[in-house]
Amino acid sequence: MGLVVHKYGGSSVGSPEKIGLVAEKIHAVRKEGKDVVVVVSAMEGDTDRLIRLAHEITPEPKEREMDMLLSSGERVTIALLTMALESLGCPAVSLTGRQVGIITDSAHTRARIKEIQADRIRDSIQEGKVAVVAGFQGIDESSNVTTLGRGGSDTTAVAIAAALDAELCVIHTDVDGVYTTDPNLVPKARRIDRISFDEMLEMASLGANVLQTRSVEFGKKYSIPILVKSTFQDGPGTLVTTEDEAMEQVLVSGVPFDTNQAKVTITGIPDKPGVAAKIFGSISDRGVVVDMIIQNVGESGLTDLSFTVPKTDAQVALKITKELAKEIGAKEAILDDRIVKVSIVGVGMRSHGGVAAKMFSTLAREEVNIMMISTSEIKISCVIEAKNTEKAVGALHEAFGLNQSETN
Amino acid sequence: MGLVVHKYGGSSVGSPEKIGLVAEKIHAVRKEGKDVVVVVSAMEGDTDRLIRLAHEITPEPKEREMDMLLSSGERVTIALLTMALESLGCPAVSLTGRQVGIITDSAHTRARIKEIQADRIRDSIQEGKVAVVAGFQGIDESSNVTTLGRGGSDTTAVAIAAALDAELCVIHTDVDGVYTTDPNLVPKARRIDRISFDEMLEMASLGANVLQTRSVEFGKKYSIPILVKSTFQDGPGTLVTTEDEAMEQVLVSGVPFDTNQAKVTITGIPDKPGVAAKIFGSISDRGVVVDMIIQNVGESGLTDLSFTVPKTDAQVALKITKELAKEIGAKEAILDDRIVKVSIVGVGMRSHGGVAAKMFSTLAREEVNIMMISTSEIKISCVIEAKNTEKAVGALHEAFGLNQSETN
Repeated sequence: MGLVVHKYGGSSVGSPEKIGLVAEKIHAVRKEGKDVVVVVSAMEGDTDRLIRLAHEITPEPKEREMDMLLSSGERVTIALLTMALESLGCPAVSLTGRQVGIITDSAHTRARIKEIQADRIRDSIQEGKVAVVAGFQGIDESSNVTTLGRGGSDTTAVAIAAALDAELCVIHTDVDGVYTTDPNLVPKARRIDRISFDEMLEMASLGANVLQTRSVEFGKKYSIPILVKSTFQDGPGTLVTTEDEAMEQVLVSGVPFDTNQAKVTITGIPDKPGVAAKIFGSISDRGVVVDMIIQNVGESGLTDLSFTVPKTDAQVALKITKELAKEIGAKEAILDDRIVKVSIVGVGMRSHGGVAAKMFSTLAREEVNIMMISTSEIKISCVIEAKNTEKAVGALHEAFGLNQSETN
Repeated sequence: MGLVVHKYGGSSVGSPEKIGLVAEKIHAVRKEGKDVVVVVSAMEGDTDRLIRLAHEITPEPKEREMDMLLSSGERVTIALLTMALESLGCPAVSLTGRQVGIITDSAHTRARIKEIQADRIRDSIQEGKVAVVAGFQGIDESSNVTTLGRGGSDTTAVAIAAALDAELCVIHTDVDGVYTTDPNLVPKARRIDRISFDEMLEMASLGANVLQTRSVEFGKKYSIPILVKSTFQDGPGTLVTTEDEAMEQVLVSGVPFDTNQAKVTITGIPDKPGVAAKIFGSISDRGVVVDMIIQNVGESGLTDLSFTVPKTDAQVALKITKELAKEIGAKEAILDDRIVKVSIVGVGMRSHGGVAAKMFSTLAREEVNIMMISTSEIKISCVIEAKNTEKAVGALHEAFGLNQSETN
């Protein structure tokens, strides 16, 4: 008998009525003869309520205590969902992160899973029960409560699926799948039927917020197919799975874009060795992650250096850069946060040439100026002015044959 | 350096502001040089909110899942209180029932503590931290979450004080101590300064709802003095402690009364052996606890039998009794729930005669009819009509010299 892991997020279990609906869906899967493990998040709004309480106490709550506080949320949903299943005559048992044996490191509020023991899940399945597991939480080796950070329940679900060698992990969410690009921006965007783990990882890190990156990494590492679908709407969803030949036929699978980017530029840097190392060393010491970097050597022998960081870290990066600019005798440091990073992603790029040229010519035809470029084996990213986002994404979406009418 | 355990109930930690005030109080105790363990309940209203959610899912939630659900409440308060202490510069750490090693039996929603390991509390104290412990909850030997039932946090506090051999356990609540009787009924009621464990046990089981009975039993068994005082009002409170000579000088310490009583009477029982055993056997099989029993043999050789049960169980008891009455050929079974049990409690009774006589004559003078009587070494209880409660309690309170003006 096959085992499937189903994950429901906070909006899917946001009220007793919704929990009742989820219970009915799980019961239906159970009646098909599948063994089922369910992973749930806290009720929508509950985490925000707890964070507000904490901030009424102190502006800087300790991370260990935030984890203790927030981990209460999933206890509520696992208990309520188990009650709902039992009341339908579907035997079930709620299990916390600790009871499942989800062992993490001790990085409170952003812990990483080190091991999943899962003995109690196996026992529950043996007893014919649906195991209802608290997502997002674990314990460290000293038995302190930890949480996995935003989107952590996705990671819990896929990691449990890996630990139990499940045949599938279904992530129920409020969208009906992964889209070629944001349908709010491009009405012709369409749902992707199948996508490879590698493409999904690029899509996720490039701004498509459907799945948590780490959960996709787990899926890839342990070859657990992940099906993303809507909780309250029927439909096939998107299957994230191992790459196959059919996928390679598709040149570009999606056009993700990331509006949470800012660009810092230092101009007039004297050409001395070690300057770049100094700048990026200082920035990384402050925990800021630099994404793209370009360097232009001008006629005068002076260099301009630009790099991008998340918008939220822009002010910190600018401050550090200004101090360093003075120190190394550069001209000035400037921040530009009216930019966007537009990318094209597809495993087909590995075997097909001319993709980059087509991207650049498409943008040129739309008179979109490219400020920075970076590439990997299966993606090309361009930083452009934010005001050109819609025009650029729409043109690329059409140029690579992703528009709805062309494929349906 | 002495160790004290402080317990704060749900109304004391009902908002972030109140939690801030509690943190200041604990910090003050810590600055006096005491080692401190704090036990807290869920925020006022939170438990009711969770129970409502469960009942929206199903009218009969499983007890194991209710425990999982309700145990989330104390996680919130221990985390918030610890944050508040840390923000005052008072090192602290939150600990769940499991982390403290509170091992209970598996009777969900009314578990009994079997063992407290307390290693992590000892470690925290060693590190100079205030241990902030979740009351009301533990785990059974299979690591399932359990709760101790209503008032369970009092029991947690005293049991931890016993496990750590604390010098004192302070129970902070919304009243400023234990009173000679209910001040809402008798305005001259006064706060008791000191009371013995045995008297407090009688007071608690007779209707004075300040302390949970089991917590007093723990205090008595391990000789841990318990100080009951108000959270938000300064004052000496009431010390519950080992009996001493001064206490024996006081004939009567309090006049508790219990309005949650109902009386069932079976009339015209044929005089055959085993009838009483049959009746009380059936009732106890249904989990109903019988309190007082009287039997009158009439002239005809037929017997009347009356007993009291908690009002909440009255209908169940009546139903059983009616069935049995038919079966044994008795005349009828009648329910009377307009009764009250008024008691006088005092260790002084052990060494002084005439207390019962004084109680009965006081009630007779007030023309209060006594329907049932029961006694123990340190208490006398009378069942009377509910309409006479105020008159009877007031008269006894005065007759035994408990009125405020006489003692202040």
